[in-house]
Amino acid sequence: MNQTVEQLLSHYSVRAFLDKPLSEDQIRLLVESAQAASTSNFVQAYSIIGVSDPKIRKELARISGGMSYVEKTGQLFVFVADLNRNKQIAESKRENPASLETTEKMLVAVIDAALAAQNMAVAAEAMGLGICYIGAIRNDIERVSALLNIPEYAIPLFGLTIGYPEQNSAPKPRMPYQLVYHENEYQTKETALYEAYDTTISDYYTNRTGGVRNETWTDQIAEGMKKPVRMDMKAFIEKQRLGLK
Amino acid sequence: MNQTVEQLLSHYSVRAFLDKPLSEDQIRLLVESAQAASTSNFVQAYSIIGVSDPKIRKELARISGGMSYVEKTGQLFVFVADLNRNKQIAESKRENPASLETTEKMLVAVIDAALAAQNMAVAAEAMGLGICYIGAIRNDIERVSALLNIPEYAIPLFGLTIGYPEQNSAPKPRMPYQLVYHENEYQTKETALYEAYDTTISDYYTNRTGGVRNETWTDQIAEGMKKPVRMDMKAFIEKQRLGLK
Repeated sequence: MNQTVEQLLSHYSVRAFLDKPLSEDQIRLLVESAQAASTSNFVQAYSIIGVSDPKIRKELARISGGMSYVEKTGQLFVFVADLNRNKQIAESKRENPASLETTEKMLVAVIDAALAAQNMAVAAEAMGLGICYIGAIRNDIERVSALLNIPEYAIPLFGLTIGYPEQNSAPKPRMPYQLVYHENEYQTKETALYEAYDTTISDYYTNRTGGVRNETWTDQIAEGMKKPVRMDMKAFIEKQRLGLK
Repeated sequence: MNQTVEQLLSHYSVRAFLDKPLSEDQIRLLVESAQAASTSNFVQAYSIIGVSDPKIRKELARISGGMSYVEKTGQLFVFVADLNRNKQIAESKRENPASLETTEKMLVAVIDAALAAQNMAVAAEAMGLGICYIGAIRNDIERVSALLNIPEYAIPLFGLTIGYPEQNSAPKPRMPYQLVYHENEYQTKETALYEAYDTTISDYYTNRTGGVRNETWTDQIAEGMKKPVRMDMKAFIEKQRLGLK
């Protein structure tokens, strides 16, 4: 099999890094790899903030629930869905920026940022580094935005921590292909497929934890729905003047 | 430089494919590569619809503005931000699915789908195939949803057409690194950086078109803001019961 495809299939998240910063050259290569991803109508509607300042990292780690790998890492990147750049261009050219306030444009910026981030993740692993996404920066989106000086028309979406792995791991089994892939139209999938995957995941946890954990995947999904979280997201996004219409 | 990183940096979109379908094995490897991407809290909140039916492809091509590479391709994939799976699990376990209706959960699903798509794009290029994202399926999101039988709690985000390239091309120059990358906090960037990039892009078009096109990047961005498009996106998403709160 192709080496790049093999690398993709071998991905796992790393949650412990050596205390060794990435070099400027590494950071630049990672950012340029991110930039090489496809972008909707060439709009490149994202920014990447590299956080090296220990005080900011400490605060982001606190917001994210005390994860040490937000602080102790090679470099911490925050991906921002960014239409503020377009807003600045509108101002300089006396255009009306109202179209930036549509849900369509917000989707464009979120998707652009995510495509770029995944390219960075792939580049990092190709460079022998480990990665972990930090969605938990959204635990306090207002505080994160203040900390990172995020302007209107922009949303800090997630962190991506990249560094030298302290230990190796192995991929976590994904859903069976048949649960994800549909032919020609969306199909409701058979219960048996979920049951088989539940067994896979329960066995996976049992083996990894010596029996301490044994929950199924659908148990996890149900648990994750019990209480709504990050209920300030809609108000925050609207305050940023995005997704208003 | 590492071969995978080199591949990422060499990306360009392909807009003409041979009339040669991908094999089942290729499709499965592409989908499994997509699935190997990181996913928020392991929720895997997306579905991938492979469209081989020529009638559906024809209609999707029409909606997307008549692009031939939506029809004549190796395989056409549609990526769906999918919380309907979670809804089904909620029903089977008598959980309340109300938390799926938050903007936070919608973001999770959109980001998960985009990360998976970019992994598929990288895998495709590693396999010697070409790719192009088709955001233009959102030109008529209602019609696309009807065509693909998309249930509530799900949004068809974009297409990804993958096939054997009919011709090679070259990467389009991205923004200078300094316009995308910020250190420790969001920084408003100097006008000179935009001016330099405008020259790069104007030269790029001049060379490619023998002078027929010579617009700058900021001209394009300003032009793209002139009239809001896809104004039904917010109502559609809310009808799907997503992003309601």
